[in-house]
Amino acid sequence: MRNKIVILGSTGSVGQQTLEVIRKYSNEFEVVGLSGWENTRLLKEQISFFKPKIAVVKNEYIARNLKKDLNKQNNIKILWGTNGLINIATLEEANIIVVAITGIASLIPTFEAVKKGKKIALSSKEAMVVAGELLVREAISKNAKIIPIDSEHSAILQCLKNEKKDCVEKIILTASGGALYNFTETALKNVTVEDALNHPTWKMGKKVTIDSATLMNKGLEVIEAKWFFNIPANKIEIVIHPQSYVHSMVQFIDGTILAQISEHDMKIPIQYALFYPNRISNNFSRLELTKIGQLTFKKPNFDKFPCIKLAYQALELGGTMPAVLNGANEIAVNAFLNSQINFSAIPTIIQNTMKEYKPKYNPNINDILDADYWAREKALSFCINKK
Amino acid sequence: MRNKIVILGSTGSVGQQTLEVIRKYSNEFEVVGLSGWENTRLLKEQISFFKPKIAVVKNEYIARNLKKDLNKQNNIKILWGTNGLINIATLEEANIIVVAITGIASLIPTFEAVKKGKKIALSSKEAMVVAGELLVREAISKNAKIIPIDSEHSAILQCLKNEKKDCVEKIILTASGGALYNFTETALKNVTVEDALNHPTWKMGKKVTIDSATLMNKGLEVIEAKWFFNIPANKIEIVIHPQSYVHSMVQFIDGTILAQISEHDMKIPIQYALFYPNRISNNFSRLELTKIGQLTFKKPNFDKFPCIKLAYQALELGGTMPAVLNGANEIAVNAFLNSQINFSAIPTIIQNTMKEYKPKYNPNINDILDADYWAREKALSFCINKK
Repeated sequence: MRNKIVILGSTGSVGQQTLEVIRKYSNEFEVVGLSGWENTRLLKEQISFFKPKIAVVKNEYIARNLKKDLNKQNNIKILWGTNGLINIATLEEANIIVVAITGIASLIPTFEAVKKGKKIALSSKEAMVVAGELLVREAISKNAKIIPIDSEHSAILQCLKNEKKDCVEKIILTASGGALYNFTETALKNVTVEDALNHPTWKMGKKVTIDSATLMNKGLEVIEAKWFFNIPANKIEIVIHPQSYVHSMVQFIDGTILAQISEHDMKIPIQYALFYPNRISNNFSRLELTKIGQLTFKKPNFDKFPCIKLAYQALELGGTMPAVLNGANEIAVNAFLNSQINFSAIPTIIQNTMKEYKPKYNPNINDILDADYWAREKALSFCINKK
Repeated sequence: MRNKIVILGSTGSVGQQTLEVIRKYSNEFEVVGLSGWENTRLLKEQISFFKPKIAVVKNEYIARNLKKDLNKQNNIKILWGTNGLINIATLEEANIIVVAITGIASLIPTFEAVKKGKKIALSSKEAMVVAGELLVREAISKNAKIIPIDSEHSAILQCLKNEKKDCVEKIILTASGGALYNFTETALKNVTVEDALNHPTWKMGKKVTIDSATLMNKGLEVIEAKWFFNIPANKIEIVIHPQSYVHSMVQFIDGTILAQISEHDMKIPIQYALFYPNRISNNFSRLELTKIGQLTFKKPNFDKFPCIKLAYQALELGGTMPAVLNGANEIAVNAFLNSQINFSAIPTIIQNTMKEYKPKYNPNINDILDADYWAREKALSFCINKK
């Protein structure tokens, strides 16, 4: 029997690559739900190829138009908004839910899928960053599985496979260093949007690429790693590895390091998550270490890239503080992309927002949403004052 | 209850380091047998510290003297020769047999331990090289476990742990390249013994260090890897990695590579083998990738180092041919160390020996010993003619 799969965010980069993988293994998967938000042109193509039973878009207006367009084809149900996402994320017949939506919008559908005990392949960073504690607790009680899709956490999962948790000495998260790693502190003050978007190894969305340049991306991954693997923050280390071929490592209590190494190809961790715990053959291009020649490693400079420190701090403060970090970061990055603030103002705005906040502990989902909302408002006020 | 452990070759480098590890975990292990061949001074120290029930030395004369020396101390039994080694390798009460004897002498005691269904931590290359097929077949039928101690195969074992065999695309054995990797082909013809003994990363015995310089060491490890992991030769690749921190890698059918990385410290794979499949905490020095800075990888030059080709060839020809390769190599290396032949004559002598041999298939232990003996005689005749 084929796995019945739902993809939230099927028109985004990870969503599209997930469908590429699924197309190669059509004997294994049946797509039962897709969500595509605004890119209805692509969503229509995906619908006619994969024939899901339900598709979800941003709003009722888009839904009606799409329904009209598809009318002749099939009797697909078109839903919209957060309720639509929840509907497909909790679909009775679906057993794998891929969450590849950008931003905080991933939180509620992920949480609902967890409550239904689904296997979730999670690409969206935000859900785990803002609500890791809650999601993990709920996943344990409902026997849900949350499998990471991003390359770093997939690497860690593979290095940890069947090793005992108490044998882990530390997790070593690799970071490319982003577009600006070799800029001086002075140069960092005058960084343009174009500079910051010029990522050396991965082609990704704008928000993630800026997060990569501030190294906040790695800070958020530290928070995710804590929840994915139940490892305290002081056992999670960041190493700059500009070539991005070593996707992450685990050091064990006997001094051994295991490293996961592969091409820059998101289809590898996507496939790993879909078939986990099995490895499946593919014809993706193979990494040849002898062609690359060298892999280099450097210590990160936390003073030059203070966003990392803020992320560790938010994790240490706990409760709803990571939600505040994440919300403030989204606003600050957006303001930078719109040329409203300087690059170096990003960490300042996040820090100032965190300073004015007192976290709530053992938060439920509404506490987290409140914290996120509060942080966005507060950070926005700092951005406006900067103009 | 403590594991009862026997160490064949306790006065050698791996033997001594094994005892160092055991000393740290004296609650876990009781040493019941030691063999020390000629170094009775060190063996005596080991006996008074670990108090084994039986010790084995080279011959009756050494045994009598040792017995006299120890008389006041304890009622230890002193045995000698191959029969002595077999005695402790098959000791009823022993459940772990560490085999760390140099050369072909490891074969018979290892084989006998396998027949008794022991857990064997195997450091000696020769046993697996000359008799891998036989040892593995016997181990399966007697439910014996053969765990590698050398760093490369320990690395592969760790990368393969709990992965399915049919998920392996290839094994990538790393090689430092030895002392002469950057020598030109002309310079290789005039290599001195001193040049060849100047190993860049590991401090080892002379024979192994020369094998490292000819890259025969890596060829022998290819043969071992085939038998340890049941992987065909065409799926075993060699990569030059001069820093020797990546001890080996496995590439899987999904394009993922797992690598095992650690300090140059044999105590790490020794400990791993003793406690396998568990990892145990230690205070050995930790590798810091950010201090090392870079790891490099190059393709090996099979033309400059033809011993690798000969090893692949012997493995392909199968049967008793690996025993002939190994026997001829021991003689040639010895002749080089005694300045009887040039460095570049080593592969020529092995090749000529192999050319005159027709392998026997499905060999038993005596066929293997015969092949070894034949190869040594033949190779010796070539060495003498070279003078």
